[in-house]
Amino acid sequence: MALDKMLAGEAERTGNVLPELGLRNYWYPAIAGWRLGRRPRSITLLGERIVLFRDGDKTHALADRCPHRGVPLSMGKCLYPQSGTITCRYHGWTFDGASGKCVAKLMEGPDAAIPPRAAAKAYPVREFAGFVWVFVGDMPAVPLEDDLPECLSNRVHWHSIANWRTYHCNWRLLMDNLAHDQHAPFLHRTSPELIFQPIFKHATRNSAEALDDGKGIGHITRGGISSAEYPGLGRFPPPQEAWYRILKPVGRGKEIDPGDSPATVKYGIKYRHMNLLPSVALIGRPSGDFFTCRWITPADATTTILYNFNLFRRRGHDTIDRLKWLFWMSWAHDWLFSDQDKWVVEAIRPGPELLSRTDVGVAAWRRFALKNARCPRPSDSHGAVAALPPENVDSIGV
Amino acid sequence: MALDKMLAGEAERTGNVLPELGLRNYWYPAIAGWRLGRRPRSITLLGERIVLFRDGDKTHALADRCPHRGVPLSMGKCLYPQSGTITCRYHGWTFDGASGKCVAKLMEGPDAAIPPRAAAKAYPVREFAGFVWVFVGDMPAVPLEDDLPECLSNRVHWHSIANWRTYHCNWRLLMDNLAHDQHAPFLHRTSPELIFQPIFKHATRNSAEALDDGKGIGHITRGGISSAEYPGLGRFPPPQEAWYRILKPVGRGKEIDPGDSPATVKYGIKYRHMNLLPSVALIGRPSGDFFTCRWITPADATTTILYNFNLFRRRGHDTIDRLKWLFWMSWAHDWLFSDQDKWVVEAIRPGPELLSRTDVGVAAWRRFALKNARCPRPSDSHGAVAALPPENVDSIGV
Amino acid sequence: MALDKMLAGEAERTGNVLPELGLRNYWYPAIAGWRLGRRPRSITLLGERIVLFRDGDKTHALADRCPHRGVPLSMGKCLYPQSGTITCRYHGWTFDGASGKCVAKLMEGPDAAIPPRAAAKAYPVREFAGFVWVFVGDMPAVPLEDDLPECLSNRVHWHSIANWRTYHCNWRLLMDNLAHDQHAPFLHRTSPELIFQPIFKHATRNSAEALDDGKGIGHITRGGISSAEYPGLGRFPPPQEAWYRILKPVGRGKEIDPGDSPATVKYGIKYRHMNLLPSVALIGRPSGDFFTCRWITPADATTTILYNFNLFRRRGHDTIDRLKWLFWMSWAHDWLFSDQDKWVVEAIRPGPELLSRTDVGVAAWRRFALKNARCPRPSDSHGAVAALPPENVDSIGV
Repeated sequence: MALDKMLAGEAERTGNVLPELGLRNYWYPAIAGWRLGRRPRSITLLGERIVLFRDGDKTHALADRCPHRGVPLSMGKCLYPQSGTITCRYHGWTFDGASGKCVAKLMEGPDAAIPPRAAAKAYPVREFAGFVWVFVGDMPAVPLEDDLPECLSNRVHWHSIANWRTYHCNWRLLMDNLAHDQHAPFLHRTSPELIFQPIFKHATRNSAEALDDGKGIGHITRGGISSAEYPGLGRFPPPQEAWYRILKPVGRGKEIDPGDSPATVKYGIKYRHMNLLPSVALIGRPSGDFFTCRWITPADATTTILYNFNLFRRRGHDTIDRLKWLFWMSWAHDWLFSDQDKWVVEAIRPGPELLSRTDVGVAAWRRFALKNARCPRPSDSHGAVAALPPENVDSIGV
Repeated sequence: MALDKMLAGEAERTGNVLPELGLRNYWYPAIAGWRLGRRPRSITLLGERIVLFRDGDKTHALADRCPHRGVPLSMGKCLYPQSGTITCRYHGWTFDGASGKCVAKLMEGPDAAIPPRAAAKAYPVREFAGFVWVFVGDMPAVPLEDDLPECLSNRVHWHSIANWRTYHCNWRLLMDNLAHDQHAPFLHRTSPELIFQPIFKHATRNSAEALDDGKGIGHITRGGISSAEYPGLGRFPPPQEAWYRILKPVGRGKEIDPGDSPATVKYGIKYRHMNLLPSVALIGRPSGDFFTCRWITPADATTTILYNFNLFRRRGHDTIDRLKWLFWMSWAHDWLFSDQDKWVVEAIRPGPELLSRTDVGVAAWRRFALKNARCPRPSDSHGAVAALPPENVDSIGV
Repeated sequence: MALDKMLAGEAERTGNVLPELGLRNYWYPAIAGWRLGRRPRSITLLGERIVLFRDGDKTHALADRCPHRGVPLSMGKCLYPQSGTITCRYHGWTFDGASGKCVAKLMEGPDAAIPPRAAAKAYPVREFAGFVWVFVGDMPAVPLEDDLPECLSNRVHWHSIANWRTYHCNWRLLMDNLAHDQHAPFLHRTSPELIFQPIFKHATRNSAEALDDGKGIGHITRGGISSAEYPGLGRFPPPQEAWYRILKPVGRGKEIDPGDSPATVKYGIKYRHMNLLPSVALIGRPSGDFFTCRWITPADATTTILYNFNLFRRRGHDTIDRLKWLFWMSWAHDWLFSDQDKWVVEAIRPGPELLSRTDVGVAAWRRFALKNARCPRPSDSHGAVAALPPENVDSIGV
């Protein structure tokens, strides 16, 4: 489906111009490798039901519906090991995992006629970094590495600890949440991970620019405050939160985009927060030794799987990284911190929006994705961008 | 939305010409006051999601959706006590409870631009008789007292004991149930409250007329029987029910509309059973010292809250009234008697109706409401009344 | 509704040209007789809600909705025993079970006017073979016996043990499953009932022809194999299943359509597997002494009740038949064997099909039913048959 077709009607309803079921023609993580055992397994990606199965060291992905009479192939069995095939449970139609073609109709005998239409769509599939990845789209697959950020694809210099969580909302709401929209200093100020730190800077002047490789945007932050007096209301952070705000606004809050952080000086990392196509947030630390790569994977219109890759630069102490994750990060960040987002994002009632200065990153992401998402591209992407109504944006200052 | 627009298509489908989500521009009870504590609370009235919150002794009601990015305001917090504001959990947009206007965007700093559109709809709200009342509509609110019957608004001469119950059906079916349609002598004849009384008179000649204040209708009942022989069937009440019908048809059954009841003679109460706009049934006793005021409050198209105000004339023994309610009425009437209605009304399958002589009150109520409901009134109310097809009414004799 | 109207749009969506809610103007089993006691009972047949009730030895079936105000009559009561009536719970409208006409409005008195439209649709109903049967349609009922196969209608020579099971799928998928489509040798090869038998023959050359009485089709099977080598895959049945395939392909597998079976020689039974209108599969044994008659009864579009009549020829040992059923067939066939079908059929995702040589029986059934189903018949059945697109059938060889 052409992108512009998918957008028709959507923009007005949700205020979001990107396709409801996700950007096609990209690789997406489909399942943790260890969860795919000897039995075929059904998953849903971008609204498509897909059966995954292993045969020896090969992994296959086919449309999860037998073209004969409609039974899910995931109910079937790999009846002939080493042949790379899966056999439908109903009448024994047998499909080649690589091409999707029917290679036998067991109940019709070896001489059965097999028309070319007797085939299930085959999806390009790869196992990498502990996950099964599937390319969902309508064009030939690109190499998987083309779609991965370097810190995820380069297993020599980086290692990863990954987990995932199911969000009961559309993927776009989660993507907006991870587009550097300054919700963190407010929503997460009560998170155990941040509670004894000074508050993040807010009221910053943000902007975003395309990455050099054209695969996403990098967010730039200037200025900002840690506290202010609001007429008629009082101070923010509010006085009743003072007891755990005893630290001065130093630490992380101070370090946003400092030109002299190790990330910049030692590793030349230009952006602390990036959004990558198709639907990825890549967020680093000042040390330059850690990124969290959050792959927002649309299952269907109201279900999204957030794959969360914690990426550590290999410095000879992988075990320490693992312990740190196990005893602190998994609990404080991947669980408690992120579930504050989950709670809010799942409750959003889609409808008209009123984007504001904090949403510069959100608007920049939407525009970038709309314009640069892999083909099939909207025939008239200019028209589609215009669908983000200018009067809906309150001086976003991009 | 104009009333006539709302009716389009409805009449044919349900046989009921009133708007599916209730009559707008009236006050409705929203929640018992003691259930609204220090945390904001989300309710639904006439299909609209509304957040209620208290700040000191003020109560506020706003549309429960932040115009910024769509998060329910009921997830937020009253971060600045005494300011009468509520703050959205996501980015700290703060709204004035009285006007609905955004007064601060906490994450953008005190100098953030706030366009006029940055506002949530504010609903007029009052606390009265132990309940929070909200005016749902499109015009300036009338005084609450305008919408209350005297026995509810006059707290000097009357006191109330109220409860409520959720009905899983459209409000119109419940309103029909309470429009003096003579279901009582049949459906409730087995209710513990009535079982040892003589049966109510039925086959009465009913009519209805507008109240003097134009706020509803009063039902008039003439004649009636307590028992009859039906050819081919037998006697009603049927013989197998005789053992608990040993009492002669006296008592209440005899007392319907007697000109010499205390209600009439002492207090000048003209009607024993009234229906008031927007969706209220007011039913009295011959003593003139008690009314049940049942406020049928549409939540959404298939959920209705029945607020039940038991109204006692203050005669110096409120405590006796309370004990009587606690040990008898709450059980025998508010629970067992009313749940016979609940069971039947929730099971109704909407569709064509065949109104009959017993439904004179139902038809009169619908016509009255259609013609007299507060503006915005149908531009051509005559046409809308005509939507109640005459051939659908079997000699209703109004 | 005319058959061709019902088919519009359906064929393309599901690949199945028969009406979604079942073939009208036939008798269907509605409930086991012992489950209908003294209280009225609501059932759903072909999408229609029906109330069944007994009065003495008469059984009645009416549309389960009071025409007055829409309350289900099944909430009512048979207030006047021996009168054959049911009375609505709400206002006491009383309906004659045989004609459906309102005979009294109890709350309006014996002299109430009762217009002809005050009636609930009455369904022809019969009790037979332990079940309540209802004729659902728009024409006068045919005699029940016209719609039953002889082995079910002739209680002198046959006796039956029946049970039923609810399938959460459309009736057409279950009918396809029982139209001799050769799924048995594949899907059921692991069933306990068949596991120690030689495998059924498959890759047979099938055809189907109309029965002499025009009430269905009989399936004819020629040739077939029990095992074969598939290039690139291996042998079917696969070697890993060899340990329980130690028996030679004799026994049942050998006996398909033998001209010298008792069924043929002794009883002149022409077909082992038949499909009868409206939606019945009749499957016999070579002995000619047993049939399973499976009545596929559409409740609504996604719910189907499979009534399963095990029919035994009376040979003086009914008790032995019952014990055999109780200790073996009920478990091995009616439960384990049939639930393999249930599991698969309920999982089917409707959509385009690719019928093949094994589906000769399926296509033949659809064409026969479309052409021969009882009136109202499609005005242009030829056009409707054409809706089964020829290019969708891969050389079905009928």
